[in-house]
Amino acid sequence: MVDWRGKNPGIDSRGMGSCIKFVFQPGEEIGRGAMELVKEDHVLENPKVDMAFAAHGWPTVESGKIGIARRYAFGCVGAFAVEIIGKKGHASWPEQTIDPIAVANEVYQHIPAILARKISGTDSGIMSVTYMQAGVEKIKNVIPQICKFGGTMRTTKRETMEKMAVELKNELRAICEVYGATYKSDIKIHGGAVENSPILLDQVREAAGEILGQEQSYIIEGDNLGGENFSEYSNRVPAVYMFIGIKPKDKAEIPGLHSPIYQFDDGVLANASSVFAMLGYQGCMGMLENS
Amino acid sequence: MVDWRGKNPGIDSRGMGSCIKFVFQPGEEIGRGAMELVKEDHVLENPKVDMAFAAHGWPTVESGKIGIARRYAFGCVGAFAVEIIGKKGHASWPEQTIDPIAVANEVYQHIPAILARKISGTDSGIMSVTYMQAGVEKIKNVIPQICKFGGTMRTTKRETMEKMAVELKNELRAICEVYGATYKSDIKIHGGAVENSPILLDQVREAAGEILGQEQSYIIEGDNLGGENFSEYSNRVPAVYMFIGIKPKDKAEIPGLHSPIYQFDDGVLANASSVFAMLGYQGCMGMLENS
Repeated sequence: MVDWRGKNPGIDSRGMGSCIKFVFQPGEEIGRGAMELVKEDHVLENPKVDMAFAAHGWPTVESGKIGIARRYAFGCVGAFAVEIIGKKGHASWPEQTIDPIAVANEVYQHIPAILARKISGTDSGIMSVTYMQAGVEKIKNVIPQICKFGGTMRTTKRETMEKMAVELKNELRAICEVYGATYKSDIKIHGGAVENSPILLDQVREAAGEILGQEQSYIIEGDNLGGENFSEYSNRVPAVYMFIGIKPKDKAEIPGLHSPIYQFDDGVLANASSVFAMLGYQGCMGMLENS
Repeated sequence: MVDWRGKNPGIDSRGMGSCIKFVFQPGEEIGRGAMELVKEDHVLENPKVDMAFAAHGWPTVESGKIGIARRYAFGCVGAFAVEIIGKKGHASWPEQTIDPIAVANEVYQHIPAILARKISGTDSGIMSVTYMQAGVEKIKNVIPQICKFGGTMRTTKRETMEKMAVELKNELRAICEVYGATYKSDIKIHGGAVENSPILLDQVREAAGEILGQEQSYIIEGDNLGGENFSEYSNRVPAVYMFIGIKPKDKAEIPGLHSPIYQFDDGVLANASSVFAMLGYQGCMGMLENS
């Protein structure tokens, strides 16, 4: 949302001269679209964008309500892929091999210590190993050459994620040295967190409340560490990301994000669009303070 | 080798009336042939077999020599295959999942404790995990449903292996309970160890020495925990299993067993066959004491 009135003090009371940019977010799941729009298409400039809003259908928020994270709507996302290279051999003489599964499992076992011993207990942090691949099921008497594993890292602060990456490499280097193995690692930091603007937060909750009823819009105190490359906008301009409820009242739980049976409750679209319209109106009318 | 003279005291001095059975060992690599020959074909009966000999080309024994294990030429062999069943979910919310990789790695981490804490330090024991399969490399944000792992168990005593199997199941049950996971396990004991007859041992070494030169046949003090279903014979009659050297003198090391580039030194065949012929002669002539 772009308000030109800063440059044009004589703007009329209908907000004429302000404008709203609608952004289609391409390549979100691979984390690449937003950066392209910012760097290549200069979407935040000419005219300069003053604040940004986004929303996502959210399976843990009740239909008809909108939840807004107090601080982090999404986390900083990283990924790691590791290949431990050992020395293949007969499983009856492990001492003649360098067992890459042993190395990988020892690294795995130390990963929680990165979170518990190397970063502050008040920082958010998740490291999940989501695959581990070594050997084949039908060969039970050969220790394989290679064990691959990897997964995701999440936190709220980029410097915490950088620390995680450094510590994971330290661990790999040290444990491979113990075993005489080698490794390859590919550790990527995909993007920053989506931190909701503390200044805009209550204003947005109230604006949403005007559409939905005040008790229907609420602040979610906990951080959420999913990933969202809307961070490329929210790291540059004050922004608020809303969670639009899609869980029908009569259901205790519905399928989560990325589930093949994800259920979107179409009934919430009219109200959710109205909230955006309201924010657009208020923004253009100078009713939202962003600094 | 079968000596009928026990039943026929009047046998002549040329050993007539004794006989030698040559056994082709089918299905050795899948551990099933010998048992069939014993149970179905009654190979050890009619006439009853008094002692048995076997040999294997051996890449760590020098060509021209024969090594004979003091006790265990091969170990008792078992295999385990485990499937940990967790609850799939998004890797950013591990608390909503039951992570089967975490369970499998914790079981893995405890396996050495079975050897070090649950069986005697004077027992031989090896447990090697040779495969671990969970998730897929390109999916880094989903904790998978299942982690499979398995491998081989080796020891010299069947009761030790039975203990290993029981302890592995205890571990699986306890660790799965901690995580709320379930598991399937398939633990098989394939066969017993090949224990060389202490009575025949020196006699065989000496007989081999008569062919090769006495310094060329020797006793290997350490046990070997490879697998060999010749155990079906050696567990029923006194037996000696020989390791026929195939490592050329000028090489420090040659490819191991089951290597795709395993090298058999054909030059050793004549002498090795002669050793068998000598044992046949001595056995039939009553020159080998088996009890």
